[in-house]
Amino acid sequence: MVKAEIITIGDEILYGQILDTNTQWISLELDKLGIKTVRKSSVGDQKSEILQILNEAALRADVVFITGGLGPTKDDLTKKILAEYFDCELAMHPLALQDVTEFFAKRGRELSDINRDQALLPTKAEFIRNSQGTAPGMWFNEKGVLWVSMPGVPFEMKNIMEQEVLPRLVKHFQTPVIYHKVIKTVGIGESYLSDLIESWELQLPEHIKLAYLPSIGIVKLRLTAVGDDLSRLQAEVEVELQKVNSLIKSYIFGYEKEELAEVVGRLLVDEKATLSVAESCTGGHLAHQFTQNPGSSAYFLGGILSYANQVKIDQLGVSEAILTSDGAVSEECIKAMAIGVQKRLGSTFALATSGIAGPDGGTEDKPVGTVWIALAHPTGVVTRKLTLGGTRMQNIYLSSLACINLLRKYLLNDLS
Amino acid sequence: MVKAEIITIGDEILYGQILDTNTQWISLELDKLGIKTVRKSSVGDQKSEILQILNEAALRADVVFITGGLGPTKDDLTKKILAEYFDCELAMHPLALQDVTEFFAKRGRELSDINRDQALLPTKAEFIRNSQGTAPGMWFNEKGVLWVSMPGVPFEMKNIMEQEVLPRLVKHFQTPVIYHKVIKTVGIGESYLSDLIESWELQLPEHIKLAYLPSIGIVKLRLTAVGDDLSRLQAEVEVELQKVNSLIKSYIFGYEKEELAEVVGRLLVDEKATLSVAESCTGGHLAHQFTQNPGSSAYFLGGILSYANQVKIDQLGVSEAILTSDGAVSEECIKAMAIGVQKRLGSTFALATSGIAGPDGGTEDKPVGTVWIALAHPTGVVTRKLTLGGTRMQNIYLSSLACINLLRKYLLNDLS
Repeated sequence: MVKAEIITIGDEILYGQILDTNTQWISLELDKLGIKTVRKSSVGDQKSEILQILNEAALRADVVFITGGLGPTKDDLTKKILAEYFDCELAMHPLALQDVTEFFAKRGRELSDINRDQALLPTKAEFIRNSQGTAPGMWFNEKGVLWVSMPGVPFEMKNIMEQEVLPRLVKHFQTPVIYHKVIKTVGIGESYLSDLIESWELQLPEHIKLAYLPSIGIVKLRLTAVGDDLSRLQAEVEVELQKVNSLIKSYIFGYEKEELAEVVGRLLVDEKATLSVAESCTGGHLAHQFTQNPGSSAYFLGGILSYANQVKIDQLGVSEAILTSDGAVSEECIKAMAIGVQKRLGSTFALATSGIAGPDGGTEDKPVGTVWIALAHPTGVVTRKLTLGGTRMQNIYLSSLACINLLRKYLLNDLS
Repeated sequence: MVKAEIITIGDEILYGQILDTNTQWISLELDKLGIKTVRKSSVGDQKSEILQILNEAALRADVVFITGGLGPTKDDLTKKILAEYFDCELAMHPLALQDVTEFFAKRGRELSDINRDQALLPTKAEFIRNSQGTAPGMWFNEKGVLWVSMPGVPFEMKNIMEQEVLPRLVKHFQTPVIYHKVIKTVGIGESYLSDLIESWELQLPEHIKLAYLPSIGIVKLRLTAVGDDLSRLQAEVEVELQKVNSLIKSYIFGYEKEELAEVVGRLLVDEKATLSVAESCTGGHLAHQFTQNPGSSAYFLGGILSYANQVKIDQLGVSEAILTSDGAVSEECIKAMAIGVQKRLGSTFALATSGIAGPDGGTEDKPVGTVWIALAHPTGVVTRKLTLGGTRMQNIYLSSLACINLLRKYLLNDLS
């Protein structure tokens, strides 16, 4: 299997002033080609540090991707250091000079000497065109390793990769076929999940690996199959999906990049159903989970944010009696909220939240993290009481997630 | 100067399934302490790769931060490998066991064996409490290097760093006195900002450095003063703050970690004023910016999410005539929405949004990114038309930001 190392050069990434998104993007693209990233590194604009990482990478990888350090200013050293590392000179490259000249001409700007020097390349470098900027890409086949140097500006780097580098890599390497499948689950923790699927995990064939990708409220399972025949791998993974599906069916909400609210939105559209929300403790976050997805206006009508009790009374028709006797964080109140918004907005379904997100507002019998949620459907209301133990933001997020999952399970006739 | 190396462990980051934001955050925190990050690395869940990077880091750094690989599942190897690397056993740690037991008890869940094993620590590790999750942090002083191992879940890692690790680092290392001040600006781009403050930037004393930390919609300016007398540094920075404030006063909304909505919320509380929202294109995101902050119930009454036009009519009193003649994305509609929610919820102020977030729904005269916002105040309405060019999520975020900033400027009598 071809091994890749990805190196970013620059103090601003090393010191954290910029978030590096290039290495993630590059490794995902390599992954699709079956090229395995074995190391990612960031070093600063220091000659010694850069030479050190080049020497290390040469021992580890078959192909090394270097981004950054190609700007026209003094602190950008990559080109000089690559020339030294590969023991060659910097020389003006005619095609590179032509490109940089056109780049400035097109923009009606003067070509300064410092910009003209962008066309100076190590003589051992193959020129790789950068149609988006002034710093060319470079391709070296030296020391038994393939080296690709690109500017750090994300859109320039991506363009160079897609237009020039990826096609060359496919030609250059004989890579195995890799097939990934990501299973997304909700409503169960990583450890409980692994208990449920352990027997299945243990019987996976050698060439199919499982990885857990947990995040708050959501656990992703990634299957990676390696072989030489894509359709065969897909078939084998499909068989394993069937098996695991039979073990954790009701926790699986989607695959690959599907988001929970997106999946539920699709189910609503399929049923030509509409949704409204009545939010107290989630304060708009629940609605945002739906409305951040393109096309949500096809089913999402709107909602009432009833943070203050008076709004619950006036806009949702919650009776003062309920608020006095049971309080806003109660099953009676959440029922009234869900039914109230469903009726007023005329939606098929309505979701409601009311709870204590914290850090303040908790009481003996209703501590921080106590949240009531409800789903009003065409023939009734379902309620759930959540007991959460997170920060304010986590409690808000998990409450929204629980609401959306409640609707998902209802739409799939999977409510216990 | 103390040298730090930051290592992330896990295939999901190495292969690009997850974007690593931990290393950026850690390096920024270290920078504040005057600890210099010299290398960032990501390796996979492979014993050999992990041992190799540990050996390399030991040669480069005085302190090594390791995140990830501490989950309860089989593919998480960090703890076992650290025990082997430091030549010691794994043993049940009483405090860790107590924490993980309480963690599950608090959530009314059963402690499975695999979760109980989260309390197994290398005997040479100092236990570091993780109040947010089940994987404890670990602190080793071995091989002449300080080693800090933390879970990869960002909110757990950050909590451990802030509560436990950063204070210990200050004690452990003799670092120079460093004083930071972060100035937060909104409504102006990085390059325009730098034009406005260039003269001030050039006259800064040698020992006070300026860094730009740009993010979408917000640009942070970080002043870093290095010396030996904290109170003197604070006084010197205060003088510089006065100078820069006179140059960009109306763009500065806060300092340090203050969030825009938090600042505006405080201004509302000071005025004993209340706020409601009427959201169309922001779909709950605007309200969430306020309600995610503790104490927002002191001024935030609630709102109407009027995604569908019928909801604008029924719940906000927007006339059908306006929707037919001007459409939902218009100055007339946004005025009616803001006044409508202000009247119905009886709030002092009301903010409203209506626009085309994209990617679809754009027209010739109202392209994607066209957004109207409005502020209804006690004596009238102020409107603004935004022309945004971002993704759907960026357009939603920038619309919310513009609304909140509009209210901020009104409250400060700074509306142009």
